[in-house]
Amino acid sequence: MGDESGDLTLPLVISIDAMGGDHGPSVVIPACARALATMPTARLLLHGDEPAIRSELARHRDLSARCDIRHSDRVIAMDEKPAQAMRRGKGTSMWNAVEAIREGHAIAAVSAGNTGALMAISKLILRMSADLDRPALVASVPNPNGVTTFLDVGANVDCNAARLVEFAIMGEAYHRAAHGVARPTVGLLNVGSEEMKGHEEVREANRILREGVIDLDYRGFVEGDDITAGTVQVVVTDGFTGNVALKAMEGAARFMYDELGTALTSGPVTSLGALLARPSLRRFRDKMSPPPAAPLLGLNGLVLKCHGGADEREFANAILAASDVAQSGFAADIEQNMRRLPQALVPVTPAPADGAA
Amino acid sequence: MGDESGDLTLPLVISIDAMGGDHGPSVVIPACARALATMPTARLLLHGDEPAIRSELARHRDLSARCDIRHSDRVIAMDEKPAQAMRRGKGTSMWNAVEAIREGHAIAAVSAGNTGALMAISKLILRMSADLDRPALVASVPNPNGVTTFLDVGANVDCNAARLVEFAIMGEAYHRAAHGVARPTVGLLNVGSEEMKGHEEVREANRILREGVIDLDYRGFVEGDDITAGTVQVVVTDGFTGNVALKAMEGAARFMYDELGTALTSGPVTSLGALLARPSLRRFRDKMSPPPAAPLLGLNGLVLKCHGGADEREFANAILAASDVAQSGFAADIEQNMRRLPQALVPVTPAPADGAA
Repeated sequence: MGDESGDLTLPLVISIDAMGGDHGPSVVIPACARALATMPTARLLLHGDEPAIRSELARHRDLSARCDIRHSDRVIAMDEKPAQAMRRGKGTSMWNAVEAIREGHAIAAVSAGNTGALMAISKLILRMSADLDRPALVASVPNPNGVTTFLDVGANVDCNAARLVEFAIMGEAYHRAAHGVARPTVGLLNVGSEEMKGHEEVREANRILREGVIDLDYRGFVEGDDITAGTVQVVVTDGFTGNVALKAMEGAARFMYDELGTALTSGPVTSLGALLARPSLRRFRDKMSPPPAAPLLGLNGLVLKCHGGADEREFANAILAASDVAQSGFAADIEQNMRRLPQALVPVTPAPADGAA
Repeated sequence: MGDESGDLTLPLVISIDAMGGDHGPSVVIPACARALATMPTARLLLHGDEPAIRSELARHRDLSARCDIRHSDRVIAMDEKPAQAMRRGKGTSMWNAVEAIREGHAIAAVSAGNTGALMAISKLILRMSADLDRPALVASVPNPNGVTTFLDVGANVDCNAARLVEFAIMGEAYHRAAHGVARPTVGLLNVGSEEMKGHEEVREANRILREGVIDLDYRGFVEGDDITAGTVQVVVTDGFTGNVALKAMEGAARFMYDELGTALTSGPVTSLGALLARPSLRRFRDKMSPPPAAPLLGLNGLVLKCHGGADEREFANAILAASDVAQSGFAADIEQNMRRLPQALVPVTPAPADGAA
């Protein structure tokens, strides 16, 4: 991936959808300036409305010299349906940001735009490298020791065993690349009830991962509360369960914040207490906020989705994450284990005595 | 249900597994005393080791006159497999507590014992009233306006559309009975992505509930964060997704508590703040704790599972919940809507022009 830098001569170019997200260039451009301050040799390719981008760039003179602007007249709306985005997306800032990877002009793309559209467009332009219907979406959930890499959180609803194993392979490689952990531990999400340990698909994926043909530090089944406990570093599930569980956790955290806020301003003594504890509460809130960038995995190229409401610091962190992962052995790691998958999928040889075909 | 009070002449008798849970009679008996204090005409049927029960009862003289003890030599271990519990469960305190319902000696049973065993034994003794494989387990999740009734959270892993509709019917009736809401609102859990709104089963259940043959205030699809937002009062999903989502929320809440505790004791000024805010923080914690009792739905009889670590107050609340639900129109409500289910399940008539059978 990294050696195809195309018509740009610098080693690291990140492609940016400058129009995506709730704020567009007014947040994206300051975020670019912030990110480049810690990436001395990188360049950016900014896609979007040139006058709007230039007007923001005017406030960040150092940045202009390290950016190229690719004008696009149109944008993908935040509420646009993925199918529509695929049909009429050509020439939008999001489309062009992703296409720059395929054309070899950038090593990765970052967008805070419409998630469904970004997945659909990325798949159309870059194509899947794994045997997936659509890219897998990764969430990073805080735990006491750092973050848990949790996937799939919304892309692939119906998942067979092979797909769950693919998620394990991709999630493990991403966790290593993003967090510098040599050999991340991996678990498969299941229910706790003893009698019926989950779907057939989950049991079969467990069998494949247990066998060891796939080179992962696989630790077996985990349950819903292990995601925030950090029992393993990578938690794998289907896109339906993953999406619901992630949103359920986000909802629970939001509810607790709100109730805590109400509780801590309920009387003068309590309010004084809250005031004294404020710096700690702020650190607490920051620790609870998950990293803002989620990679789309399984594509021939690295696309990071930044959440729509991201602020300057968050979008900058997404650019830095794109840079870290793009420069790692991420793609090669995935490819190596994917090559082992067909062998791992061969069903257990039936006992010879069983005559029935 | 309520008019079959059998050989006991008082109108309301609750059957109690006195040996279940992490603490057994030392928590269950004081909890019984606490519950009966607010239920002036109720009686209890206590199942378990008679000497152990009598020794606890000695400290609660008022209670003895309103309890009958049914001795059992054996108990179901907390880690016993459901299949094993079914085979060798006869004569245990849990078995006898449930059997008292079938024999008409009690109107409901409460146990803090092994969940899987309680489900298996209850199913064996009482049999399913709905067309379910096993009882549906309900969780009550706090939300800003009260609690959300959330099911199924661990019993039925593979759920077709009819089963999801059954959960909606049972969950709605339970919410009305337990919380006194005349017409609870109901939602079906799904993923947010526009392009592919969930499994086939979820889409089909949505169609059936939308059609209105089943008499519910159905509000359509909801997402994971709606569980704690209180968007609807009853959230329906399959047992796999429900179990994972519930544990994920519990894990997220536990993680936040722990981090908050660490943050609030990180320095002298902060600690003073935490001390001043303590009463509010305690109310906050209480509000976050879900009700300790979960009914097993779909049985010919009311069984409530109390969580294993329940304290005296929590087990007492479980007994009160059993009393409230048993005295409501709960069973009749479910029966009425269940009778409409076959009609609602009839597939939409295909257009006559389509020749292919």
